[in-house]
Amino acid sequence: MSFVRNAWYVAGWSRDFGEPLKALEITGQRLVMFREVSGAVKALEDRCPHRLLPLSKGKRIGDTIQCGYHGMTFDGAGKCVRVPGQENTPKSAYVEAFPVEERHGIVWVWMGDPELADPADIFDLPEFTQPGWHAHHGEGLHIKSNYLNVAENLVDPAHVSFVHPTTLGNAASENVPVHVSTSGEVISAWRWIRDAPPIGFFQKFGGFDGHVDRWHYYDLHLPSTAVIDFGSIDTKLNCPENERDRGVRIFALHFVTPVREDYTIDHWMHLRNTSLGDEDASAQMDAMFKTAFAEDKEILEAVHDAEQQPQRRRPIRVAIDKGPTVYRKRIRDLIASETTQDLGAPIGASFIQHD
Amino acid sequence: MSFVRNAWYVAGWSRDFGEPLKALEITGQRLVMFREVSGAVKALEDRCPHRLLPLSKGKRIGDTIQCGYHGMTFDGAGKCVRVPGQENTPKSAYVEAFPVEERHGIVWVWMGDPELADPADIFDLPEFTQPGWHAHHGEGLHIKSNYLNVAENLVDPAHVSFVHPTTLGNAASENVPVHVSTSGEVISAWRWIRDAPPIGFFQKFGGFDGHVDRWHYYDLHLPSTAVIDFGSIDTKLNCPENERDRGVRIFALHFVTPVREDYTIDHWMHLRNTSLGDEDASAQMDAMFKTAFAEDKEILEAVHDAEQQPQRRRPIRVAIDKGPTVYRKRIRDLIASETTQDLGAPIGASFIQHD
Amino acid sequence: MSFVRNAWYVAGWSRDFGEPLKALEITGQRLVMFREVSGAVKALEDRCPHRLLPLSKGKRIGDTIQCGYHGMTFDGAGKCVRVPGQENTPKSAYVEAFPVEERHGIVWVWMGDPELADPADIFDLPEFTQPGWHAHHGEGLHIKSNYLNVAENLVDPAHVSFVHPTTLGNAASENVPVHVSTSGEVISAWRWIRDAPPIGFFQKFGGFDGHVDRWHYYDLHLPSTAVIDFGSIDTKLNCPENERDRGVRIFALHFVTPVREDYTIDHWMHLRNTSLGDEDASAQMDAMFKTAFAEDKEILEAVHDAEQQPQRRRPIRVAIDKGPTVYRKRIRDLIASETTQDLGAPIGASFIQHD
Repeated sequence: MSFVRNAWYVAGWSRDFGEPLKALEITGQRLVMFREVSGAVKALEDRCPHRLLPLSKGKRIGDTIQCGYHGMTFDGAGKCVRVPGQENTPKSAYVEAFPVEERHGIVWVWMGDPELADPADIFDLPEFTQPGWHAHHGEGLHIKSNYLNVAENLVDPAHVSFVHPTTLGNAASENVPVHVSTSGEVISAWRWIRDAPPIGFFQKFGGFDGHVDRWHYYDLHLPSTAVIDFGSIDTKLNCPENERDRGVRIFALHFVTPVREDYTIDHWMHLRNTSLGDEDASAQMDAMFKTAFAEDKEILEAVHDAEQQPQRRRPIRVAIDKGPTVYRKRIRDLIASETTQDLGAPIGASFIQHD
Repeated sequence: MSFVRNAWYVAGWSRDFGEPLKALEITGQRLVMFREVSGAVKALEDRCPHRLLPLSKGKRIGDTIQCGYHGMTFDGAGKCVRVPGQENTPKSAYVEAFPVEERHGIVWVWMGDPELADPADIFDLPEFTQPGWHAHHGEGLHIKSNYLNVAENLVDPAHVSFVHPTTLGNAASENVPVHVSTSGEVISAWRWIRDAPPIGFFQKFGGFDGHVDRWHYYDLHLPSTAVIDFGSIDTKLNCPENERDRGVRIFALHFVTPVREDYTIDHWMHLRNTSLGDEDASAQMDAMFKTAFAEDKEILEAVHDAEQQPQRRRPIRVAIDKGPTVYRKRIRDLIASETTQDLGAPIGASFIQHD
Repeated sequence: MSFVRNAWYVAGWSRDFGEPLKALEITGQRLVMFREVSGAVKALEDRCPHRLLPLSKGKRIGDTIQCGYHGMTFDGAGKCVRVPGQENTPKSAYVEAFPVEERHGIVWVWMGDPELADPADIFDLPEFTQPGWHAHHGEGLHIKSNYLNVAENLVDPAHVSFVHPTTLGNAASENVPVHVSTSGEVISAWRWIRDAPPIGFFQKFGGFDGHVDRWHYYDLHLPSTAVIDFGSIDTKLNCPENERDRGVRIFALHFVTPVREDYTIDHWMHLRNTSLGDEDASAQMDAMFKTAFAEDKEILEAVHDAEQQPQRRRPIRVAIDKGPTVYRKRIRDLIASETTQDLGAPIGASFIQHD
């Protein structure tokens, strides 16, 4: 077992779920999802217990799903409500149901023991609901790579100068030291580049022309939610590290969902305190992010492919690996604890501030 | 081993076999087939015993096949008649030959012990040669699913309302009880829908406008030949069950040939007592059948794919599964008997009447 | 292990290697190759020891490769010269380097123990540098088949009449006896067809109209370099076997490079003593060779595919298999000796004359 199961994972945005049956897969579990007439989103095992046809190939009848092969019918709780050809419904005629929560336009599914599902554990940021902030939901980036490769990349500032030299980084920042903190619940890496010309992104969306102080904070919340807090502020304002809201600030959020061992979807979105309500600005940012994410995707898929080759030597670890190394160890420990005890500890409600 | 070997399987229609070498595969055995100058169809192991090149990549020289690599040459009995570069032909230079029979435009191959091959065991129907009946050979439907899924679907009236709501069934018949008989050599399921409007098919080809009695009989002959006898007759004629020839009657025949574990060809054709000699009617029926078979194919491939997933719970069985369940058990028993004894019992000559 | 490792294999022609990083694979080892500013071609393991990204996805910085993920940088000897984010470079930060030699426009890589690499062992022919000879480098034929199938085909005159009836052979030569010599270091097969009309090739490039004597010599040098010496001479000149230079003579060279167990590249070229400097003639010969090689490719891929099937009987061996059989045994012995001793014997410098 290579996934943390007792955790909330992102299945998609609210706009992705409606009347039609939607098939997807999380941690190797195939799901059928749909929105009930009441508005609630449901997630069921996508496998009729009779002849195994995916229920997503069936038909909605009100708030139930009728299997497309013999018409066995299930409600949103996974209970069988009809077996054509007989009066009774056998006890074994059910499908598993997975807890679903929806907030801020994001749909989360709990893939582990339903008894342990606590909506209070779902990742949150106060900026989702604060005035002066604009949330923009992006897309799902499909990556043929293990989710740990994808997630560790998000707490790894060292790759930015080499993978994204023209978008998110530049050679100038190659040698600016990175701080790493692994003592708290969230693994963090950050750096400030002080008194430098603004990068293209902040020329465009910050309107800066003189020198700025620029920050990048990478926070990785277990099992696989990343928050990249980055921004710029006029150097002359001499901004302290904990007053970043005074500058142009963006939270780039990555909800990394393991589909299978070799397939991952990174649902990405952002929160920003600039260009509020300006959907042109959102589209321009999306375009820039998508260029950068395509660069990551190429690297992460090549790394995954290389990992499938026979290995004659162990990979080496270097100084910049501190965040990723601690991250992988924590995931291993979580998986081990779920395997040895049957009661895995729920993954923490994770909201920290660096300020 | 998951196939019944001592059985006649359909390789194709007579029109599919001629001068050219034809490669095909039945029960995991690759075959090369061709029609000799005399008219007889031959089936040989499609593997030169020398360097394994498929003989189907070679060349016909009269009634022999010359291998396309080094010219080793075999006759229709699999005997080596030439080894270029030497005078003698070694004893081990042969390919297996498989008994072939051709009748009513259908080519059958015996995949088991040739000693046990008895042409009298080949499936037959008296209507093939009776006046007043028209035979129309359809096509081979290729399905990426195990043959047991395909065959059991053909003794499973319960799926019709859900998989074929607009072609072969309709919601009205969902609750009409099905009779099942599993005591004889043939597994049968059937039902009559009395005093109802004709379905589209019989409006078109029966010319009915008032109410009709409609029947469906599903007979599955081991290992995998299905006869679906369906028809309609004016309700006012009050037709007894055993006088179906008085109505408009069709035998839809399905010869289910296992190619490999995960690949099956369903050769389908029909016999009818209406629109004799009318090839326009044949084409219209084909079009309708093909719509319905595409619906089956989608379901059967999705079921096969789901069967390859790890299974945490056993599938459940319900009342409508009686025919399929007995069918699978009989196949398992046949395979087991072929495996334990070396002399498998030949599969029965199978012709029964429900009347 | 199914490859001879202590051997020089052809990676490509000189023209294939320059400034860009080139990814390729030999004996299952992924390589990145490039030409240094000095002109020397280098071959390194194509795997960064840090996060395994292929170095071929990185960037050349002078004569070094900077990894495309975190910027770790290696020189042409595989030594790490930079780890961004730290001062020191750990001992384990290196990639394997493979000896490379380049001569006559051909780039060779030694895939085994570098201590044993001796450029004197590289295949050579005096005609490469003799006046009166023209060398023409062809292409790399990609074949989805094991390299032993490809190589044995090149010491197998018996297939020519059946695989290449219209290009390299004809039915007339089917029964001309073949001489085989397996006693020396090189496995050889040859035959002369005396006093016969010229085949199309020599009508075109030899200008013959009367009868000719035609020869074919197939020499296979271990592990997998084949020389096919073929030509024609006016029958009236009564040419002895060892004076073939008096006729129109071609050396067709095949450098068979095992990529993986199931994938091989045959780099082919020729040397000729006719149409010197005539690139039109080269292009016409290429076109003819490519037709013939496509015929081989189809056979060799079908054989490989057939070898992956379950085999119920062992393949048989016949008289014409003498060369291929000895070849396979020698390869097995070489691989066994590399496996049991750690010091494999280097593969011989191989140049023999049949004259």
